[in-house]
Amino acid sequence: MPFYAAPIVRLLEELERLPGIGPKSAQRLAFHILRADEQSAGRLADAIVDVKRSIHFCAQCFNFAEDDLCEICSDSKRDASIVCVVEEPRDVVAIERTGEFRGLYHVLQGAISPIDGIGPEQLRVRELVDRIGKGGIDELIVATDPNVEGETTALYVARLAKPLGVRVTRIASGLPVGGDLEYADEVTLGRALEARREM
Amino acid sequence: MPFYAAPIVRLLEELERLPGIGPKSAQRLAFHILRADEQSAGRLADAIVDVKRSIHFCAQCFNFAEDDLCEICSDSKRDASIVCVVEEPRDVVAIERTGEFRGLYHVLQGAISPIDGIGPEQLRVRELVDRIGKGGIDELIVATDPNVEGETTALYVARLAKPLGVRVTRIASGLPVGGDLEYADEVTLGRALEARREM
Repeated sequence: MPFYAAPIVRLLEELERLPGIGPKSAQRLAFHILRADEQSAGRLADAIVDVKRSIHFCAQCFNFAEDDLCEICSDSKRDASIVCVVEEPRDVVAIERTGEFRGLYHVLQGAISPIDGIGPEQLRVRELVDRIGKGGIDELIVATDPNVEGETTALYVARLAKPLGVRVTRIASGLPVGGDLEYADEVTLGRALEARREM
Repeated sequence: MPFYAAPIVRLLEELERLPGIGPKSAQRLAFHILRADEQSAGRLADAIVDVKRSIHFCAQCFNFAEDDLCEICSDSKRDASIVCVVEEPRDVVAIERTGEFRGLYHVLQGAISPIDGIGPEQLRVRELVDRIGKGGIDELIVATDPNVEGETTALYVARLAKPLGVRVTRIASGLPVGGDLEYADEVTLGRALEARREM
């Protein structure tokens, strides 16, 4: 005999497909949905359907967008001469949170990872080259992750972009603010030493 | 400027209402849904709506049920003379997984917790008394959680049920199987000593 009625099994299966949701979490979520009032469960279902219907990729930077262009690309107050290249839309959010950057973005939608079969042609690299070709971009800040895939992607982007006459920079690696020297890994500490600055 | 488009904000808000889902998890889930194909997001939304539409409480035991009676209550091969009283539907699943119990259940839908304003009248206690009153039940196994609320509820149920002429038993407390004596808390170890059995 199955432990759950069929509609519950179906919900559990769908929940378990989500990242970071195992059988126990799926059960907790399912029981929460079962206990919730019909409206709040309906709102969740609507939000899922709605986000898929109304959100697509920005035609210029490939961030998520409601309209043809995302809110950042269509904001005339932003500096279009400086473009920050990131892997994922969530990286745009992370950089926006700093409040330090007033330029535009280019979301590659991943990083080069031969082991996962992801080469430059799976990413929005060609679109970046086209965008540089249109002119108006002075600097490219490459803010891919500081790991093997991100560094490979950064090198690849830099090699493509430099001959097109733009300045290419890379975000700094070093000790996290508030971090502890003692607990830093040797690679990070090595980078921090290498990239030391005059005081 | 908001970091996300409105439909994404709405999805994030709805996801964060779920138990154990904080802002970071909500973001991870939302980005997964955004990256997923339309069908799989649709299936998740459908499963949520469907579970709310088709699942209600069993008229006899108050477990989740698709029909008027749940699958366990409508199974004629189960022993209707012995009823296991639990707090939540998930406890039914936990006991069913043991494969040790062939009786029926009664789901109280919570435990007595004055601090949360939950008294016996918020639980399915009256329905349990009515059910005993109809006859045919010989034993009530009280399997509420072994914590303050669960023990209080167990005592309350026992005091109500005993005068009605049914045998009331409580599941054993003790060391978990595979557990380590050294790491057992003193209350559990005390209970395990108290409830020792002849070998």
